[in-house]
Amino acid sequence: MDRAVFFISDHTGITAEALGRSLLSQFPDFRFERTTLPFVDTEVKLRAACQRIQASQRDSGQAPLVFSSLANAGLRTLLMASGAVVFDVFEGHIERLETALGLQSAQAVGRAHGFHAQGRERIEALKFALDTDDGLRADAYGAADIILVGVSRSGKTPACLYLSLQYGVAAANYPLAEEELERVELPRTLRAWRDKLFGLTLAPERLHLLREERRPGSRYAALPQCRREIQAAAALFQTAGIPCLDTSNMSVEEIATTVLHRSALKRLRW
Amino acid sequence: MDRAVFFISDHTGITAEALGRSLLSQFPDFRFERTTLPFVDTEVKLRAACQRIQASQRDSGQAPLVFSSLANAGLRTLLMASGAVVFDVFEGHIERLETALGLQSAQAVGRAHGFHAQGRERIEALKFALDTDDGLRADAYGAADIILVGVSRSGKTPACLYLSLQYGVAAANYPLAEEELERVELPRTLRAWRDKLFGLTLAPERLHLLREERRPGSRYAALPQCRREIQAAAALFQTAGIPCLDTSNMSVEEIATTVLHRSALKRLRW
Repeated sequence: MDRAVFFISDHTGITAEALGRSLLSQFPDFRFERTTLPFVDTEVKLRAACQRIQASQRDSGQAPLVFSSLANAGLRTLLMASGAVVFDVFEGHIERLETALGLQSAQAVGRAHGFHAQGRERIEALKFALDTDDGLRADAYGAADIILVGVSRSGKTPACLYLSLQYGVAAANYPLAEEELERVELPRTLRAWRDKLFGLTLAPERLHLLREERRPGSRYAALPQCRREIQAAAALFQTAGIPCLDTSNMSVEEIATTVLHRSALKRLRW
Repeated sequence: MDRAVFFISDHTGITAEALGRSLLSQFPDFRFERTTLPFVDTEVKLRAACQRIQASQRDSGQAPLVFSSLANAGLRTLLMASGAVVFDVFEGHIERLETALGLQSAQAVGRAHGFHAQGRERIEALKFALDTDDGLRADAYGAADIILVGVSRSGKTPACLYLSLQYGVAAANYPLAEEELERVELPRTLRAWRDKLFGLTLAPERLHLLREERRPGSRYAALPQCRREIQAAAALFQTAGIPCLDTSNMSVEEIATTVLHRSALKRLRW
């Protein structure tokens, strides 16, 4: 079962896509043909978008689903008249917010202010994550909001980059080397920063697969080696009182959000 | 004017935050105190969340605003009864989608399927972006979806990382060196990949500030030098027919989304 889906936004489309992704995931039996039309911020552009939607309807004989995040009421009305099944991100919400706050909204097309204002903070955080990736620049740990710790290939780098880009969190990461694991005590570099440490772990079988991709047939990738390292890391996390997350079945945003939540780190005030 | 805002989700909270960010940005005169409560996926957790909301209401004397993305109808009903002003991401949408698709939704708590299924693809894309950052591994350009080109500090790295993490796009980047700019012709490394190239540029004054941060008082950071490089890059983009984006006033997601849109690159099929 196929169905055409459009995302229409006067800005990046990230909000409309997020809403659509959540809603459509509730209908796993469908195959959705998705098209995003971002930066639709004038009547001319909206009319062009409506033509694409109507063309799709003619071709398929079915009304496309449209997820829209248009702040401007005039553009919203135009879209509603297009004949598509429109899911408006803002539907009713702006009016209710105005009532709750006792204030008229700005109805500003485009720009989500907050994102912008904090853009610089997030780029700084990203720079920090790149500079301190994989145990580099431990001298900068004083400026870290959090330091992810785990064996090689436990997913530290993607989590740090996501934490920085999505949340503006300064996240470093430190790989536990074999000799450090054998000692079952916190590496000297990390001792001063115990409160910032957060452990990542995963099932040894999964680690084995990930390492096989990097160095096939190596001792490094062998399952017994992966088992030993994961066990030693778990012992270390427990001894040192470091919170720890099993990431085996988690996406990068799930990992980042969970770390943020459990470590009670303040999110960036967008 | 302060107002407490809660984001409640049975999953990461990214959708509820995206909706809230868009809506609240329409009220720039308010200061919002934001709290995110992710992974609220049981009645017990929801009751705890409601208690926090009610405590906030008692303290401030104002009903907090709550943005929620709870897929389960029972949890939604409980939240509605808490006395807060609730903005439900899914409000009415699930029922209308069921009607449009002629099918019952799964009402699965948590897991947004799509994100998950494509997690691996995005991690692969992230690895590609890191491996090919700053002109590294030009031999891998055959596997690139896009190659961002620009002078040093023109914002290529954050854009590539965002493209990979958000959209699963394999994005490389190549810095234009001074001697390449002087020649005003496409560097040899890039010639075979003309269709994948996309230029980033920015106002010389802004480039000057960014470079001053890296190497204060250097020739590299001096305004005349920035002017020369930006002009030479513009000439090169034009001669070689490379599309180009001025990123001076753009956030990283605006840059990534615009590049995606203008280059007509397929987004990851989540």
